[in-house]
Amino acid sequence: MGRIKLAALTLLLAAPLAAQDKPAEPPTPASVIAASKPSEWTAIDPNDLLVMDLVPDVRGAKRQVIVQLIPPPFSQGWVGNIRTLAKAHWWDGTSVYRVVDNWVAQWGDGEDDPKKAKPLPAGIAKVPESRYTISMTCKVYTFQNKVLREVCDPAFAPLEPVDSYVQKGQTGFSAGWPAAVALASTGNTAWPTHCYGTVGVARDLSPDTGTGAELYAVIGHAPRQLDRNIAVVGRVIEGIENLSTLPRGKGEAGVYDDPKLRVPIVSVRLGSELPAAEQPRFEYLASDSQSFADYIHVRANRHDAFYKIAAGGIDVCNVQVPIRRVGSKAVIR
Amino acid sequence: MGRIKLAALTLLLAAPLAAQDKPAEPPTPASVIAASKPSEWTAIDPNDLLVMDLVPDVRGAKRQVIVQLIPPPFSQGWVGNIRTLAKAHWWDGTSVYRVVDNWVAQWGDGEDDPKKAKPLPAGIAKVPESRYTISMTCKVYTFQNKVLREVCDPAFAPLEPVDSYVQKGQTGFSAGWPAAVALASTGNTAWPTHCYGTVGVARDLSPDTGTGAELYAVIGHAPRQLDRNIAVVGRVIEGIENLSTLPRGKGEAGVYDDPKLRVPIVSVRLGSELPAAEQPRFEYLASDSQSFADYIHVRANRHDAFYKIAAGGIDVCNVQVPIRRVGSKAVIR
Repeated sequence: MGRIKLAALTLLLAAPLAAQDKPAEPPTPASVIAASKPSEWTAIDPNDLLVMDLVPDVRGAKRQVIVQLIPPPFSQGWVGNIRTLAKAHWWDGTSVYRVVDNWVAQWGDGEDDPKKAKPLPAGIAKVPESRYTISMTCKVYTFQNKVLREVCDPAFAPLEPVDSYVQKGQTGFSAGWPAAVALASTGNTAWPTHCYGTVGVARDLSPDTGTGAELYAVIGHAPRQLDRNIAVVGRVIEGIENLSTLPRGKGEAGVYDDPKLRVPIVSVRLGSELPAAEQPRFEYLASDSQSFADYIHVRANRHDAFYKIAAGGIDVCNVQVPIRRVGSKAVIR
Repeated sequence: MGRIKLAALTLLLAAPLAAQDKPAEPPTPASVIAASKPSEWTAIDPNDLLVMDLVPDVRGAKRQVIVQLIPPPFSQGWVGNIRTLAKAHWWDGTSVYRVVDNWVAQWGDGEDDPKKAKPLPAGIAKVPESRYTISMTCKVYTFQNKVLREVCDPAFAPLEPVDSYVQKGQTGFSAGWPAAVALASTGNTAWPTHCYGTVGVARDLSPDTGTGAELYAVIGHAPRQLDRNIAVVGRVIEGIENLSTLPRGKGEAGVYDDPKLRVPIVSVRLGSELPAAEQPRFEYLASDSQSFADYIHVRANRHDAFYKIAAGGIDVCNVQVPIRRVGSKAVIR
């Protein structure tokens, strides 16, 4: 599996940009997204959304967190459990009980003693650690020894820059999700990467102990050491500030030492469970679209007025996949 | 300037570890730090500390943020301005006026209109953009064509893993600060990297417009695209949660749209200005110490009970340089 360089990718993509009138100002990530076509966006199934309502804050303001669940083939055992838990309304009345600065906010039952723990609904599967990764096959198309195209199953749009965590392989995007691939003669393995906003399955020491009932969201620098060690099941796509601004826990491992500090969860519902008019409708910029390739290139090579030196590279967790409510603008920084 | 690989570094360092009894459990980052020697820690001069007191929170709890200023040769023009501003008590009565999720919290006067802006004290220098980087010279010592040691001025402890932002060069640590070096036949340039907690100088479009009066702290994933484009002048070493938990601004660029939402700053003092008994005393683990090398290796190669697959690499912003109050334990995760 070859590494497609950003420069080469851009060369391939230069024609459509050149065919347009050149903008007066160099493009920015936001201008690339503003110029994207509606056809380049992919709708997110409401069945892939978790809508979590926390109790209102001290000023009475609503606090909602929306999580997109990762689609097949990644982590589906745990994702299945999460749908079962949401349908059983299992999280209603549980809480956000652990918040650690530059690390995670974690929610669920939060009871260490198995005798006191909230019973799980029927149908929760035990998922083996083998499901932390999937296999990925890739075919490279060449012309005169040059890589023209590389097609992977599942689809994977590679990112050129080297990655500090994958010694033999690369990072990229699969169906809008940041992912990494390790190359081996016995077959490639791929996994979703831990980035800001990633939602994962908390577990005990044994890797098959996470059911999906206890979840965390990353609220700091990408903790990539967790990759392949915990199941990534989603990402917060709206309302992360309702987790990232919570007071940090002072108890062991950042758990709120006083149970009264816990932030009660009013309800967690699948988007598809809500009345049709209330179902959140989101879409993401497809990883294999022209605009996504342009967006990555521009983010890695900033030439707009503020920037004096373009980095020339970017890490997979700094790309920030564009996601927006249908009919709204994506928030691009 | 060669790249010293972590593996090679570890090989060189294997002797002292092997001489001790092997621990029953694999080492963790925390156990490496717990086993470090007092002589491996370097005291931070109170003149290099900024102590910022915000108004107490709604519950009346004290909110203090302590920033370590970066030592020479990095960013000294701006750091000099910051000492002048602190000594003039210029920040007293200003505020934290901008907070953006996964980006920055920013403080100072926050007045866009130059006619209304708070006047700066005498002695504030205009610092040219050439000071965003420094030159670094390195000498490599070899024996039978193997790199034995590489000595740089200023001192630089290289990190093996490749970096997504430095195409020809490497990252590492200089006097306890994460930094990057770009290699060029005309001379190497080095600069401090933007990581979680990094404090930088906000500026307008022209790169010489930042005085140091308006500062920001990174409260999200490392925005490495800012490297070499903004002056890094410090890092938050205590109390970052008093910035990272602030409500996110809803105005343009995350500025609090209602001035009443701004979080007043009671005072900002240099540590050295405080009465001797109140001066904060911190120390950092020296970059060239045995324990720091072990710490990086163990962080990049987790074999303790929770981890099933060790990443084998780490990015410079995930290393988290150990810093502690003298007499206290460092918080290591």
